[in-house]
Amino acid sequence: PDEQALGQARDRQRRMTKPEGALGVLEDISVQLAGLAGQCPPPLPEPAAVAIFAGDHGVHAQGVSPWPQEVTAQMVTNFLNGGAVVNAFASQVGAEVSVVDVGVSADLPSVPGLLPRKIARGTADSTQGAAMTRAQAGHALEVGIEVARDLVSAGNRCLVTGDMGISNTTPSAALIAAFTGRDPAEVTGRGTGVDDAAHQHKVEVVRRALTVNRVDRGDPVGVLAAVGGLEHAALAGFILGAAALRIPVVLDGVIAGASCLAALAIAPNALHACVAGHRSSEPGHSAVLEHVGLRPLVDLELRLGEGSGALLGLPLLQGSVRALRDVATFDDAGVTERD
Amino acid sequence: PDEQALGQARDRQRRMTKPEGALGVLEDISVQLAGLAGQCPPPLPEPAAVAIFAGDHGVHAQGVSPWPQEVTAQMVTNFLNGGAVVNAFASQVGAEVSVVDVGVSADLPSVPGLLPRKIARGTADSTQGAAMTRAQAGHALEVGIEVARDLVSAGNRCLVTGDMGISNTTPSAALIAAFTGRDPAEVTGRGTGVDDAAHQHKVEVVRRALTVNRVDRGDPVGVLAAVGGLEHAALAGFILGAAALRIPVVLDGVIAGASCLAALAIAPNALHACVAGHRSSEPGHSAVLEHVGLRPLVDLELRLGEGSGALLGLPLLQGSVRALRDVATFDDAGVTERD
Repeated sequence: PDEQALGQARDRQRRMTKPEGALGVLEDISVQLAGLAGQCPPPLPEPAAVAIFAGDHGVHAQGVSPWPQEVTAQMVTNFLNGGAVVNAFASQVGAEVSVVDVGVSADLPSVPGLLPRKIARGTADSTQGAAMTRAQAGHALEVGIEVARDLVSAGNRCLVTGDMGISNTTPSAALIAAFTGRDPAEVTGRGTGVDDAAHQHKVEVVRRALTVNRVDRGDPVGVLAAVGGLEHAALAGFILGAAALRIPVVLDGVIAGASCLAALAIAPNALHACVAGHRSSEPGHSAVLEHVGLRPLVDLELRLGEGSGALLGLPLLQGSVRALRDVATFDDAGVTERD
Repeated sequence: PDEQALGQARDRQRRMTKPEGALGVLEDISVQLAGLAGQCPPPLPEPAAVAIFAGDHGVHAQGVSPWPQEVTAQMVTNFLNGGAVVNAFASQVGAEVSVVDVGVSADLPSVPGLLPRKIARGTADSTQGAAMTRAQAGHALEVGIEVARDLVSAGNRCLVTGDMGISNTTPSAALIAAFTGRDPAEVTGRGTGVDDAAHQHKVEVVRRALTVNRVDRGDPVGVLAAVGGLEHAALAGFILGAAALRIPVVLDGVIAGASCLAALAIAPNALHACVAGHRSSEPGHSAVLEHVGLRPLVDLELRLGEGSGALLGLPLLQGSVRALRDVATFDDAGVTERD
């Protein structure tokens, strides 16, 4: 980050017509964005675009989800028809929605709003070997970087992560365990809803994937290939792309969090572009937030994915920058300062 | 609330294309608004209007704030010029701003956006006797009810509380202690920023106001008159007015919270219209939220007032209703349900 812009933003926060520190966490966020942009005030982070990276998972065969795999493709259709929660929230906060097929098993129609970037028809089962080849993971990273670049070229000034993939909380847990060193039992959640026995089974599946693949966290692309998903690799690229362009990226829940760990393992400075839109009720997500030191903007026990939680945080992020830009200083407004 | 609409909303949440419960707290909020409106889905809570009730406080003479009293009027001017944080946040979320002078000590100019409803030039010092007469408190309640009615007549479908008044965290603490039965030391905060000694003094001032006035929580108008502020009484009326019109009212921080206790003491059913926009870092506010059982939408250590925290919660509230209205059901979207 740009130290001069950081200093100017902190100074401006002190001179604004409000008690010092009264905007709490949002003061820090506005300072972060000034440092990222290298100017104070930074540009408003709008318009914003959410990219929903969709993929399927070979590990689904291990019975880790109560939902059939075809729901991934059905939900992509739902997104494109404007019928999902992510569409409602995007509409509420004025964000554009794109869907990127990086690995859906089914054939998808060629329609506006869907970017066809299919790398494979789902990953392989990570309990039997690597989920992807290293080349596939690298390809997915590139897709994510390119989607970020294209959305920014189109005029967007804030990117928002979205994801869809039945069973994708399982590779998320494996990635989080791999990158944070925590035990799978600590970071594996109930996803879209499984009971105690099924949760225990899911923990064991995550443990097996990590044992079979013997991942090395010093090799983040290798970790992604071994136990991740195509959407995780693409999301890691999307985060790296945003950071390289000095554009803020609002992270959704546990899938984005797992992907963020991979991105930061590749380029730790990308953290300066990251804003945690919300805290999901998945335990692995809290582990990520703690590990990387991000404070979520919204904490309402959502566990949907799609980008829904990140979109809820978006107006808070935008408000923090708008305040830094627009609020009068004590001098300008003729307001008396405190004793 | 309307039981049929509540049931329809809960049922629709279950049929929407998402895992059951995946929208967390926002599912409850959407159900609450359906019950309030008596229809499912309820109308979108927009457009929204924030009313900033402004007043001064005789208890300021006890040295409870580091800010001079004239800052109340100066900040009103700042609101009207669009230079305050509340203006930036209102602009971000598309809300209209009105300022209601119910008790500013200074003369204020007649300008658009300022509703002149001055009842007194500030309250009397509550450590020396009642802050207001019972008639003044009743008049302020009426002003608040009428402002709510007028804003809804103008087409608004969501109201947002705002407040301005140097020293107004002191009467807030007194009201909260009176209505919750907690000790002043538990519910008196540092407001816009005081050190340990000044905080201890502020607690003693609150304690003295409550001792001198011997308030009876069974007489809410009497409590408001004894230790409240004109803006607190008006805000209590504003909340009652919204509830009577079955329009949701998003509450800001500790001043709105204290006023809400008074409103609920008058009409407990008004709670169904109330949404806690955020949790302020003032300890008295957490006491209110716990006492009335509201879960705040945003929790980012803000302590500014003006309506700023409530405005941050507004898009989350709106998003919850938009999702209930717009999201496709499993049947409609042709999405397979879980096992």
